[in-house]
Amino acid sequence: MTSVVYERVALIGLGLIASSMFWAMKRSGLAGEVTGFARSVETRDTARRIGLCDRVSDTVVEAVQDADLVVLCVPVGVMGQVAAEIAPHLKPGATVSDVGSVKAGVIEAVQPHLPAGVHFVPAHPIAGTEHSGPESGFAELYDNRWCLLVPVEGTDPAATERLRALWEGMGANVDEMEADHHDLVLAVTSHAPHLIAYTMVGVADDLRRVTDSEVIKYSAAGFRDFTRIAASDPTMWRDVFLTNKEATLEILGRFTEELFALQRAIRTGDGEHLHDYFTRTRAIRRGIIEAGQDTAAPNFGREKS
Amino acid sequence: MTSVVYERVALIGLGLIASSMFWAMKRSGLAGEVTGFARSVETRDTARRIGLCDRVSDTVVEAVQDADLVVLCVPVGVMGQVAAEIAPHLKPGATVSDVGSVKAGVIEAVQPHLPAGVHFVPAHPIAGTEHSGPESGFAELYDNRWCLLVPVEGTDPAATERLRALWEGMGANVDEMEADHHDLVLAVTSHAPHLIAYTMVGVADDLRRVTDSEVIKYSAAGFRDFTRIAASDPTMWRDVFLTNKEATLEILGRFTEELFALQRAIRTGDGEHLHDYFTRTRAIRRGIIEAGQDTAAPNFGREKS
Repeated sequence: MTSVVYERVALIGLGLIASSMFWAMKRSGLAGEVTGFARSVETRDTARRIGLCDRVSDTVVEAVQDADLVVLCVPVGVMGQVAAEIAPHLKPGATVSDVGSVKAGVIEAVQPHLPAGVHFVPAHPIAGTEHSGPESGFAELYDNRWCLLVPVEGTDPAATERLRALWEGMGANVDEMEADHHDLVLAVTSHAPHLIAYTMVGVADDLRRVTDSEVIKYSAAGFRDFTRIAASDPTMWRDVFLTNKEATLEILGRFTEELFALQRAIRTGDGEHLHDYFTRTRAIRRGIIEAGQDTAAPNFGREKS
Repeated sequence: MTSVVYERVALIGLGLIASSMFWAMKRSGLAGEVTGFARSVETRDTARRIGLCDRVSDTVVEAVQDADLVVLCVPVGVMGQVAAEIAPHLKPGATVSDVGSVKAGVIEAVQPHLPAGVHFVPAHPIAGTEHSGPESGFAELYDNRWCLLVPVEGTDPAATERLRALWEGMGANVDEMEADHHDLVLAVTSHAPHLIAYTMVGVADDLRRVTDSEVIKYSAAGFRDFTRIAASDPTMWRDVFLTNKEATLEILGRFTEELFALQRAIRTGDGEHLHDYFTRTRAIRRGIIEAGQDTAAPNFGREKS
């Protein structure tokens, strides 16, 4: 059995990630009381209606009062602003964390605002769905997914260990990583793939006006997988790209280089180059399935429609 | 209840598509006898072991003997060669069809070989999984998926209608389309997305050597969806790109143009451009779900690992 890790937790921002954290903490009794705050009245009303958080506060200041752990679950572009607002009201000895998909930019934006005696342990749970908002969360989101902790220089190791215990209690595997390395790895596994999916779906949308609904009707040929990724929250993703600019552009540069090489192989009829390339990429899928990070069932084991 | 549509059907090539056709025909009693042929002895042995086809022939000539319908289920690059082999042995009045992902190129390769009195009705079921081979097929693959028929000039409408009845009996919705238009639509919904997924996975594979297995561990951030597509059969896809060269390169050209525009928006910090673009692409996902072509469940309703 797990036991209470933090007496009081405050979740700032009540979207998919925060709501899943709430249900996961409740599932295992990891927190005494969980308070929540969201900027929009509508989100706060929804949270109250569905029982998301033990107490929903109408101000961010009230939400963080006496909290032992404050988790910033807002788009990375507004993390700094929220940190500035809450800083004077943090309990001495409290831990501040976040769940942003970019780490160097968030650290730069948040850390200067935090008073001495408050521990800052940035985090990034590698989990999500294409849905967003307070009603999209569920307790199992983090089960067997990775959560990366990116402690800043001078962080008390005890604060990091306590946050690790929380994430492990919510079902995640926990690793520590340095911020710049995190941002490069995520540019590969997440940020570049998202931009590419958004782009391809945008191209299809332009063509849809020509071909009516054919693109949608025949999407099962592969395209529908891209549309799931490209249905992710626009504000969150705008901020990710603007905040992890350098690493994303570097990976996109490599992507374009490879794409041009494959396009040339198609144009010149170099079947061997294509076949070799496609054979190599197959092995990666096997690695992901063996690592327990995806299902081996055909088509992700989609429900039959 | 459905009834027998063809007394004898021959499936040439016994991979995912042919084996799913066999199980779907058996499910609804659409064919009297189904014969099968595959070039490799191993595939024929597997087929015999798992009961795939009523009779597995050791030669393609024997397989097509007396068949009322012959379906070419081989990579599009060898369709012409197989057509040349079987042509002298086709029963007068028989229908020849195929399941290739490209239509203009296949028609060009196959049609010249077929004798007068044989009907040619090219087809393309828009369905599949990332798995391949005779053991990957299942009866439900075509349920509520589209199958496009691309009858060539002069095809007997009765032959087309009969093939339509077979595909509908196997669970598919059937549309007719002109070959060049088919190839353009599929370049958007399938061929370009596959090349893009292959490329991104290839880039990650290069980087994996630097970052060890991090790309695999943290793949749940979006990348794992790409790896499913990039795990598809290399031979099939090599042939698709070489056969639908022009349309694929055209769509990839548009894709690159859009990608460059988004990269510039990232570089210049144009958040509004990004947000607008990402909002637009969200709507496409809704269209696909409403059209019954994918599940609304988060993460495709993946099994929990």
